[in-house]
Amino acid sequence: MSRLIVAAAAQMGPIARSDTRKTVVERLVGLLGEAASRGAELVVFPELTLTTFFPRWHMTDPAEIDAFYETEMPGGETRPLFEAAKRLKIGFYLGYAELVVENGVQRRFNTSILIDRDGEFVGKYRKIHLPGWDTPQPDMASQHLEKYYFEPGNLGFNVFKTMGTRIGMAICNDRRWPETYRVMALKGSEMILVGYNTPDDHTGNFDFDSLTQFHNQLSIQAGAYQNSNWVVATAKAGREEGSNLIGQSMIVAPSGQIVAMATSTDDEVVAARCDLDMAALYRKTIFDFARHREPDQYRLIVETKGPVTD
Amino acid sequence: MSRLIVAAAAQMGPIARSDTRKTVVERLVGLLGEAASRGAELVVFPELTLTTFFPRWHMTDPAEIDAFYETEMPGGETRPLFEAAKRLKIGFYLGYAELVVENGVQRRFNTSILIDRDGEFVGKYRKIHLPGWDTPQPDMASQHLEKYYFEPGNLGFNVFKTMGTRIGMAICNDRRWPETYRVMALKGSEMILVGYNTPDDHTGNFDFDSLTQFHNQLSIQAGAYQNSNWVVATAKAGREEGSNLIGQSMIVAPSGQIVAMATSTDDEVVAARCDLDMAALYRKTIFDFARHREPDQYRLIVETKGPVTD
Repeated sequence: MSRLIVAAAAQMGPIARSDTRKTVVERLVGLLGEAASRGAELVVFPELTLTTFFPRWHMTDPAEIDAFYETEMPGGETRPLFEAAKRLKIGFYLGYAELVVENGVQRRFNTSILIDRDGEFVGKYRKIHLPGWDTPQPDMASQHLEKYYFEPGNLGFNVFKTMGTRIGMAICNDRRWPETYRVMALKGSEMILVGYNTPDDHTGNFDFDSLTQFHNQLSIQAGAYQNSNWVVATAKAGREEGSNLIGQSMIVAPSGQIVAMATSTDDEVVAARCDLDMAALYRKTIFDFARHREPDQYRLIVETKGPVTD
Repeated sequence: MSRLIVAAAAQMGPIARSDTRKTVVERLVGLLGEAASRGAELVVFPELTLTTFFPRWHMTDPAEIDAFYETEMPGGETRPLFEAAKRLKIGFYLGYAELVVENGVQRRFNTSILIDRDGEFVGKYRKIHLPGWDTPQPDMASQHLEKYYFEPGNLGFNVFKTMGTRIGMAICNDRRWPETYRVMALKGSEMILVGYNTPDDHTGNFDFDSLTQFHNQLSIQAGAYQNSNWVVATAKAGREEGSNLIGQSMIVAPSGQIVAMATSTDDEVVAARCDLDMAALYRKTIFDFARHREPDQYRLIVETKGPVTD
C-alpha cells in the first residue's frame, strides 16, 4: 500500500443565514470536483459546514434552533455530497451540528465525521473544547455561545485506521490545546483533521484580534511538529453575517512546515501530497515518546481542570 | 508592587573544553554588568553554563567526567557571580551539571537554580526530558549522551513565588514538550525560564538540521501562547569544539510574540520589559483553564509513556 496520500482542505467562503442546505451542498460538491481534479484522495471541510456559524446569536425558540442541526447523516439534503464523494473515490471529513437522542435524552454536539473512499462511515468525533459561554454576555459586542448550543463531546479523541493511515479528528478550538494532539499521537495518529470557524473581530480587543491569524498558525504548526503528525485544517472564511472569519486553511507537515495555505477567504481548495512515513521521522528521534516522555511528571494535567496555586 | 519586570537573556558564545571556570565566570559577570546597564532585574543564563557541552563526548574516566560537575553551589569559583548579582540587585537563573550524594547514593543531574535579587536561593530544577542516548551510537557522526551523564530530574516542574511573580524553570529539550509548560501553568506560573545548548549539525539529516531554528522558535512561542506565560530562553551558541550551536536567545510574550531575540552566536544580552499582567490576559478568555479544559479526556497523557496502538 502506498504511503502517500493527496489531501485537500476545502475552504468555504461565508454562508448566509438564509442559505439553504441544498445551496451549501452544491458548493461542497463543486469543491469535491475541484479537489478530485487536483488528485485529492481525502478532503477536509470546515466545522459546522452546512450552515452559517449560528452560535453568534442567542436564539430561544426551539424550532429556530433545531433548524441548524442534523438529525441524520446523510439526510435527504446531504446525500448528494456522499454520493459524489463515493463516485469520485474521495474520503472526507465533514463538520455539522448534531441533534441526537441518546438513552432517551436529547443531546446536541458540534460534530465531525470521517467517510472513507468507498463511501463507508469510518468514525465520528464530537468537539471536546467548547469556547465561549453558556449564557449571553451583556458586556460583549459579539456573542460566542457554543457552550449554550452544545455539550462537550462524549466520544473522546479517537484514531481511526483508514485509507492506509491512522487519522484523528478535532474541531476548531481543540487545535489550540496541546492535549488534543498529544492524546491522538499516543494512539498512533499520523494525520489530524480539523475544521474551524474563527472570527478576528470577536473580542473587540485589538491585542487579541490582530494576532488571530498568527495564533492559528502557531497552534497548528506546534501540534503537528510536537506530535510528528500531518494536520489538515480547514476554515469557513470571509465576512459572514457581519462577522469576519479568518481563512488560512492549511496543510502542515510533521516538521511543522506549512506546505499549502489558502490565500482567499472564499471557497478555495488547497492540496498537498502527504508522505505518511514522515510522521515516523521525528517519533524515532527527538519525539521518541517511549524513550523520552516522563508521564509521572505530568500528573497535574489530568488531576486538575483549573490552576492550583497556593 | 510593580507588575513590570525587566528580564534579560544572557546568551553565551562557545566555551572551549580547556576554558577554566574562572574564565567563564568572568564572562558571566561581564554579561551581568551589561544586563544591569540595560535595567535588568532578572537574568537567564544558558544550560550547563559553566563548561563546554560535554555530553557530545563519550568519556569513561570518572575523574575526567567529574571535572564537569559542581558539587557545591556557589563554590569557590562561582562565588564571584553570586556576589556580583547581589551587588547589582539582579536575580538570575544558572544552569550547571550537578553531582550530589542523596541518601548515600551519588547522583548526576542537569540542573538550574534560581537566585533572587537579594542573593537568596529561591529554587532548584533538575532537567526532566533528557534527549539523546545512554550509550554511544556507533552509526552517528556526533554523539548526544545526556542519558549517559544524567538521570531524569527528580524534583518535578515547580513554580516559585519570587520577585513579584511566579516563576518556573525548564532546561533545553524540555521546551519542546507541551507538558512542561502546562504543568507549570497549572501551578500558576507567569514566567518560565529556559537555558539551552542546541546543535544544528547534530543529526546529519538535512531535513532535521535545517529546521533547528524554526523548531526552537515554534516550541517556545507555542508554549508561551498556549499557557499565557512569558518565556525567557537563553542559548549557549556558536561553534563550540567543532559543533555548531544555534543562538536565537529570546524573550517571548504570553501572546506568543517574540519581543527580543539575539542576532549573534556570541556573548550577547537581550532584554525586554515584561508586563506580568499580560499573563492573565489569555487565561481569562480563550485559555481560561477552569472553564475550558477537559482533563477526563487527557488521561492517556499520564497513563502511557509511549504510543498505544492496536
